[in-house]
Amino acid sequence: MEKLTVVKIGGKVIDDEKSLDAFLVAFSKVEGLKVLVHGGGKIASDFGKKLGIEPQMVDGRRITDQQTIDIVTMVYGGLVSKRIVSKLQAQSINAIGLTGADANIIPANKRPVKTIDFGFVGDIELEKVNGETLIQLIEMGLLPVMAPLTHDQKGNMLNTNADTIAATLASVLAKQYEVNLIYCFEQPGVLSDFEKKTVIPEILTSQVEGLKNDGTISEGMIPKIDCATMALGHGVKKVLIGSFDELEALAQGNSGTLIK
Amino acid sequence: MEKLTVVKIGGKVIDDEKSLDAFLVAFSKVEGLKVLVHGGGKIASDFGKKLGIEPQMVDGRRITDQQTIDIVTMVYGGLVSKRIVSKLQAQSINAIGLTGADANIIPANKRPVKTIDFGFVGDIELEKVNGETLIQLIEMGLLPVMAPLTHDQKGNMLNTNADTIAATLASVLAKQYEVNLIYCFEQPGVLSDFEKKTVIPEILTSQVEGLKNDGTISEGMIPKIDCATMALGHGVKKVLIGSFDELEALAQGNSGTLIK
Repeated sequence: MEKLTVVKIGGKVIDDEKSLDAFLVAFSKVEGLKVLVHGGGKIASDFGKKLGIEPQMVDGRRITDQQTIDIVTMVYGGLVSKRIVSKLQAQSINAIGLTGADANIIPANKRPVKTIDFGFVGDIELEKVNGETLIQLIEMGLLPVMAPLTHDQKGNMLNTNADTIAATLASVLAKQYEVNLIYCFEQPGVLSDFEKKTVIPEILTSQVEGLKNDGTISEGMIPKIDCATMALGHGVKKVLIGSFDELEALAQGNSGTLIK
Repeated sequence: MEKLTVVKIGGKVIDDEKSLDAFLVAFSKVEGLKVLVHGGGKIASDFGKKLGIEPQMVDGRRITDQQTIDIVTMVYGGLVSKRIVSKLQAQSINAIGLTGADANIIPANKRPVKTIDFGFVGDIELEKVNGETLIQLIEMGLLPVMAPLTHDQKGNMLNTNADTIAATLASVLAKQYEVNLIYCFEQPGVLSDFEKKTVIPEILTSQVEGLKNDGTISEGMIPKIDCATMALGHGVKKVLIGSFDELEALAQGNSGTLIK
């Protein structure tokens, strides 16, 4: 099986152009087939604020109303996507910027209203994802750059977590390729000591529950680890979590946390 | 040769959601393979204004500075593109929203500075356009939705006239398909009498020079007709110009102005 690496980036690396440039040079050096999934960074909320749209929160959870989904579609699906694509093209990498609506790659369900109406937020059903289409694009020699957006097949764009999109695409691509999934963020890996930045080099999926219970895996790390576990359950070979500054070492297994 | 229709829309049909919905229903009924090219409408300048970015003009010509190309990339490449794609997907049409940077379909040259620095504006060289890639996507069963954006292969997005993009794509697709190019706008066709809305049913390319000289073809119509002439010169079979309200009749040759 041919090797393919799904790399997810988010946060500072997207907001800061110099960090993005450095990251994309490192990304171009990762061997084999690749897919890049990007989050949105702060740019979307910055634009929202400039346009006088305040982030809507209910019980500490962000709500995606019509104005917000429009902003997010513009910023993630337009500005960030095409910024990355044009920079990769400048390195002669044949990138194509897509959302889950394009080529119907990721149809999703608008999250049902229970106690909170999250608005235009999409939940994915793995078996409905069009992995075949994505594989066809990759086999054409294209490098998909995926924005964290899906659609409801009724004409609405939906906001979907980028970590989830990365795990989902890694899972469907694992049918065709030997897939590694790399989550890049601000920290050097999953930390056993946040102050000393002590990285846990390896976590077995069987250890995850215990590490959640003792608080080692907490807050923002929980959904990432759950995504990792889901991807491994669908045939993804390795999941690596580490710093976007260390992508090459991460890809070689010489940095960050390996989940297996 | 299989038939393919390139349809270009711009102006009011993009700004007004009801017009867009009606147009897309009509578009879905046009038979054969299709490519849709969209302009930006007023949305980009509206967003620019809300963000406090005033349109930059020199000698009545719009200048695309860094802020403006970012806005245009967001609005055309993000909001408008994905709005159209998600609406077509809702009709089970497998649309894919692209800019000229995606899959390197339209590399362009940043316009050289002579008397005016137009900023991030891209001029296309037809022989550099990757028609083969576009054909591969179409042969996969996808319907390309093209935003009026190109790139300079140096990491910059460029603003390029949507009429030119439509004529360019029609020209490269004419190598593979029997191509009709349809320009949809607010008027029912090329008019001999603007007050009475008298449509000229047919214009031969040999008549264009005369019609420019007597003022029948003037202002905004000149670049459209020049694009039509260019496309016909590259093997496009017919060019039709008419109202976006009349797409079906236009596609059947029962409305608008036929250029041949």
